Amino acid sequence: MTERLKIVVVGSVAAGTSAAAKARRGSEDAEIVVYERDTDISYSGCGLPYYLGGRVETIDVLTPRDAAWFAKRYGIDVRTGHEVTGVDTAARTVTVRDLASGETFTDDYDELVLATGVSPVVPPLPGVDADGVFTLRNPSDATAIREWIENRGARRAVIVGAGYIGLETAEQLTERGLDVTVVEMEAHSMPRMDADVADRVDDELRSRGVELLTRARVTSIETSDDGAARAVRVEAGAEPGSGPGSGSGDAERTVETDLVVVAVGVRPNLDLARAAGVRVGESGAIAVDPAGRTSADHVWAVGDVAESFDLITGDPAWVPLGSTANKTGRIAGDALTGGDLEHRGILGTSIVRVFDLAVAQTGLTEDRARAAGFDPVVVHNIKPDRPAYLGGQEMLIKAVADRRTGRLLGAQAVGPSGVDKRIDVLATAITFGAKAEDLFHLDLAYAPTYATTKDPVHYTGMALDGAISGRAALVSASELDRRRDGGEQVQVVDVRSAKDRAKSAVDDSVHIPLAELRARADELDPALPTVTYCNKGVTGNAGQNVLRGRGFADVANLSGGNKTYQRHVRGRSAEGR
Amino acid sequence: MTERLKIVVVGSVAAGTSAAAKARRGSEDAEIVVYERDTDISYSGCGLPYYLGGRVETIDVLTPRDAAWFAKRYGIDVRTGHEVTGVDTAARTVTVRDLASGETFTDDYDELVLATGVSPVVPPLPGVDADGVFTLRNPSDATAIREWIENRGARRAVIVGAGYIGLETAEQLTERGLDVTVVEMEAHSMPRMDADVADRVDDELRSRGVELLTRARVTSIETSDDGAARAVRVEAGAEPGSGPGSGSGDAERTVETDLVVVAVGVRPNLDLARAAGVRVGESGAIAVDPAGRTSADHVWAVGDVAESFDLITGDPAWVPLGSTANKTGRIAGDALTGGDLEHRGILGTSIVRVFDLAVAQTGLTEDRARAAGFDPVVVHNIKPDRPAYLGGQEMLIKAVADRRTGRLLGAQAVGPSGVDKRIDVLATAITFGAKAEDLFHLDLAYAPTYATTKDPVHYTGMALDGAISGRAALVSASELDRRRDGGEQVQVVDVRSAKDRAKSAVDDSVHIPLAELRARADELDPALPTVTYCNKGVTGNAGQNVLRGRGFADVANLSGGNKTYQRHVRGRSAEGR
Repeated sequence: MTERLKIVVVGSVAAGTSAAAKARRGSEDAEIVVYERDTDISYSGCGLPYYLGGRVETIDVLTPRDAAWFAKRYGIDVRTGHEVTGVDTAARTVTVRDLASGETFTDDYDELVLATGVSPVVPPLPGVDADGVFTLRNPSDATAIREWIENRGARRAVIVGAGYIGLETAEQLTERGLDVTVVEMEAHSMPRMDADVADRVDDELRSRGVELLTRARVTSIETSDDGAARAVRVEAGAEPGSGPGSGSGDAERTVETDLVVVAVGVRPNLDLARAAGVRVGESGAIAVDPAGRTSADHVWAVGDVAESFDLITGDPAWVPLGSTANKTGRIAGDALTGGDLEHRGILGTSIVRVFDLAVAQTGLTEDRARAAGFDPVVVHNIKPDRPAYLGGQEMLIKAVADRRTGRLLGAQAVGPSGVDKRIDVLATAITFGAKAEDLFHLDLAYAPTYATTKDPVHYTGMALDGAISGRAALVSASELDRRRDGGEQVQVVDVRSAKDRAKSAVDDSVHIPLAELRARADELDPALPTVTYCNKGVTGNAGQNVLRGRGFADVANLSGGNKTYQRHVRGRSAEGR
Repeated sequence: MTERLKIVVVGSVAAGTSAAAKARRGSEDAEIVVYERDTDISYSGCGLPYYLGGRVETIDVLTPRDAAWFAKRYGIDVRTGHEVTGVDTAARTVTVRDLASGETFTDDYDELVLATGVSPVVPPLPGVDADGVFTLRNPSDATAIREWIENRGARRAVIVGAGYIGLETAEQLTERGLDVTVVEMEAHSMPRMDADVADRVDDELRSRGVELLTRARVTSIETSDDGAARAVRVEAGAEPGSGPGSGSGDAERTVETDLVVVAVGVRPNLDLARAAGVRVGESGAIAVDPAGRTSADHVWAVGDVAESFDLITGDPAWVPLGSTANKTGRIAGDALTGGDLEHRGILGTSIVRVFDLAVAQTGLTEDRARAAGFDPVVVHNIKPDRPAYLGGQEMLIKAVADRRTGRLLGAQAVGPSGVDKRIDVLATAITFGAKAEDLFHLDLAYAPTYATTKDPVHYTGMALDGAISGRAALVSASELDRRRDGGEQVQVVDVRSAKDRAKSAVDDSVHIPLAELRARADELDPALPTVTYCNKGVTGNAGQNVLRGRGFADVANLSGGNKTYQRHVRGRSAEGR
C-alpha cells in the first residue's frame, strides 16, 4: 500500500491496546488512533479486587501505561475522554465526542477496530441506584469502593454473584476484616463449573466465615435516610447448608450491610456495533472471523465484545477473559497489517484464587460435554500435589473425556497448591487433541519438591483411560443413585478398613477390606452388577481388579470414592431429594 | 494361558514394584515374586536429601511400603535380603542367595524382569574408602550420613558433583547449618544444562554461602588418625569466579571437611544382565523394545537399568529418573500380562530446587539440538511469573526450536516461582510436536494470582516464532561476539534509558533511547548489520521494529538483552577469553 494506512481503535483496556501495539509492529508507517471514553487505559481489570483488599496499595500500579507512554513507545495516538458515538461504514468515518469540551467531530479510517468491551450487568432492583451500591469493572470503581469503605468505616458487605469477581471481592473484603455475605442465584458458587467441584469452593468460603447464600435472589436494596444502602432483601428459596443466621425455611430475609457489590456478570457494549450494522452472534457478542473481521467491510472487533468459538466443538462461544482479549487484539493487529495470524478458539481456561483454594477449569464440563453431544466419561481424581512428606496437599481433578474417541474434553480442579500447573498442562494437551491414554506418557518434571512420581495428570489419564477401555469402569455417585433409584440391584462393596468405614459409608454397602477380598470374594454374587469403593478411588480400583480377576462380569469403581459420594449425599439432601 | 504365569522381578525400588503391581492388575492369577537384596523396598530415593536436612524427620516416611503391604494389597511375594546372583535363560531359572542364611537356591520363571537399578559412581581416589565418605542412594546411606553428622558434630561438608543429588544435598546441609563446598569438574553446576542457564544456579549457590568450585577435580581425600576423612585435595584448574579462600592460580588446594558426599553420577547395575547375555545399548544401559523386552527371550528390563530413547530424535537415551522408572515399570507390567502399553520416549524432563530457585529442563538443550543436526533457534526470555503488583518474580526461559520446521525442541528455565508449570506445559507441547508458533495460541489459565495476561510460555513462543520467521531475528551474546571477533562490522544500538545505560552496556554500542529512535534513525547506517538491545529483550524488539520499518535491511535483537550479555561477558572472562 502506498497511501498511509489509518487505523482507528475504539477502546483501550486490553484488546484495543494489544491490537494497536501489534499493528505498529506490523507497520511502522500506519497512522494509529485509539479513542477511549474513560480516563484510564490498558489497566489490569483482574487486579482490581486486590486493590480493595489492600494487597495492591495504590491504584496506579494497575494502570502502568498512559497515553504518553503509547505515543513515545509506539507512536500511537491515544485520546482518552473521547467517546465514539457513531460510525458511517460507507464513508468510513466515526463521530467522536470530546467529553471534556463537549465538542463533536468526525474522523476517518481505513480500518476500524471495535474494542468496546463489556459493562457489568445491573439488575433493575429497587434501590440498586443507592449510594454504596457498586460494580467493579475499572479503576474508578475500585477507588470508589475503597473510599466508601474507608470513609464510612464499613464493616459488612454483600456481594451479589459468586463468579470470579464476586469471589475475589469476597475474599479481599474478608481479609480486610469485613463480614461478607455472598448471594448467588444458582445452587453453588462458580456457576460455570460442575456442582460436584464447586461445592468445595462453597466449603472454603464458609470455612473462612463468608456467609454464602445459594439459590438466593436479591429482591431489593433498602436505603437509609442518607440515601445509602443499608440492607439487602434476599428471597432465599431452598437454601443448601447456609451458615448460621439464615432462618431455615424463610422465604425472605434481610441482610444488613454497609455496601453492596453487584457482580452478576457482564454484557458486551454493542451500541457502536449496532450503529455499524455488524452481525451479532448467537452468544450476544459481535460475530467475527478468526482474524477478527466483522460482517461489515473494514470493521473489526476484538476482546470481550467479540464472539469467539470453542476449540473443541467449533461452536460460537463467548467467555470474556483478559487472556483471550489480549490474544484476539494481537491477532487482529497482525491481520490489519498484512499478517496471517488467526484465532484458534478457546477452552475457556480460567482460574481464581478463593482464600487458600485455587479453582480452575479448561474445556468442557461434564454438563456441557453432554449438551454438546459427547458421551462423557468422567473421573474424580483426588491426589496430593507433592508427597505428604514434603507437605503435599490434596487437589481434586474432575476430568471429562469422550467415550467414543478417547479424546480429552475438559478438566476442573480445586486445591491449595499446584492446581494452575495441572490445568495448564491439561489445557495444552486438549489443544493438541490429546486422548486420555496420552496423559500417562507425558514426561513431566518430577522432584518431590514439585510433584509426585506419577503426577496427578498421569493418574487422571490412567483413570480416564481405564474407564474408557472398560478395564477399570467407573460409576459416579449420581449414576449409582440413579441406577438404584431405578430399581436395579447393585452390589456395593466397601474395601476400606473398619476404621474408615466407621466414619461414613455408602448406603447399603457390604464391607470386605481389600486385604481380605481375595479370600472372601465368594461372599459376593459374581453375576450381579458390582460397585467397589474406598475413600478416594485407588483402593477401590484395586478391589475392582480383584473381583474382575475372580470372574465378576460387571464391576465398576466409585469415582472419587466415599469422599465424593458423601459430598453428593449432602448436595442431594440440600436439594431435598 | 491356562498354566499359571510366573513372573520374577529382580529389584524393588520404583520400576520393579511398578511392574509387579501393574502385572497384578493385569492378571489376578499370575504368581509374582520380587527379589530384593536390600532391606528397603519401594522407597523415595528423591526424598533422601530432605532427610539429611531434617525437613523429613524420620526415614520411615520415605519407605512407606513393606513386603507385608505388597502381599496384602497385591498378593505379591516380595523377598528382601535376597540377591539374585545368576540366571539361566535357557532353563528359565535364577539363582538366588538368601543373604541372611547364606543359602543359595534356584527359582524358575516364565518371565524375568530386571529392575536392578543403578549404583553411584565412586571414582578410585586415594582415601575414598575412608569413614565419613558417603554416597546417597538409599535409606541406609541417608541414615548413615545423618548419624555421622549428629555423632561427630559435623560442621563442614564437601559435596563432589553438582548435579541433582549434589545440589539438593548441598542445600539441605547448608540449611542444617553446615559450611558446604561443592566440587564440580565441569564449568558450571547442572552439567546437563546450557552454561547460560546454569550460571544462575551457580549464583544462587554462592549467594547462599555455598562455596562452589567449578572446573575442579578432587585428587584425594585425606584422613585423620581415626581413619575419618578430614580434608579433600582439589585440583583447581581455571576456577571461574569462585568464592573467597580459593587462591587464584593455585593448581591445588585443600578443603578441610567433616564429611564428603560423592555425587558424581550413577551407572547401571549390569551384572545380572551380563549373566543373561542381554544386549547393552550404546548408552551403557540395557537395550529394550518399547514394551521393555531385552534381546533375550522372556527377559525384560525396566527402570534406571534400562535404556530409553529420545522422544524427539528417536535416538537411544539414558536419563535415569524416578518418573521414567515408574513409567517403564508400569508399561512392562502391562505388556507382561497381555496389555499393549508401549513407552513413547523421554524428554529428560527434570527439575530440582536449589534454595529459592527452581531449575528445570525438558527436551534438547541448545548444544544437544545442534549435535543432533538441528539448526537451533534460541531465545532467552526473562519474564515474571505473575504481575509485579502481586509479587511476581522473574524467571528465565531459554527455549530452542528448529529453524527449518519451527518445531519446539526444548526448554530450560530457572526462577523462584512458577518454573515447574512452564516446563510441564512446554514438555506437553513438545510431546505433541508443537511448533513455536503454536505456543501463543494456548488458552492458559490467567489470573494475576497465578500468571501474567500473556504467560511466559506465550512470550517464549512469540519470540521463537519471530526469530524463525525473520520478523524479529535474534542474535545471542556469543554469536554477536563471534561475528565481531571475525571482523564483521556490526552496528549495536542501545535503546534503553540513560540511567540503565550508565550501569552497564554492550561493548561498542551507540545509545539512542527507543523514544528518540524514530527521530534519530538517520544517525545510523541502514546498510550495516544492526543489533538492537535493551535490558531483557522487549524494548530491544520494539527498537528492532522501528529500524526495520525505517528500511534497515538486517536488524537482530539481542536475545535476553544486556542482562544476558553481561552474564556472557563474565563467563567469557572466567574462561580467560
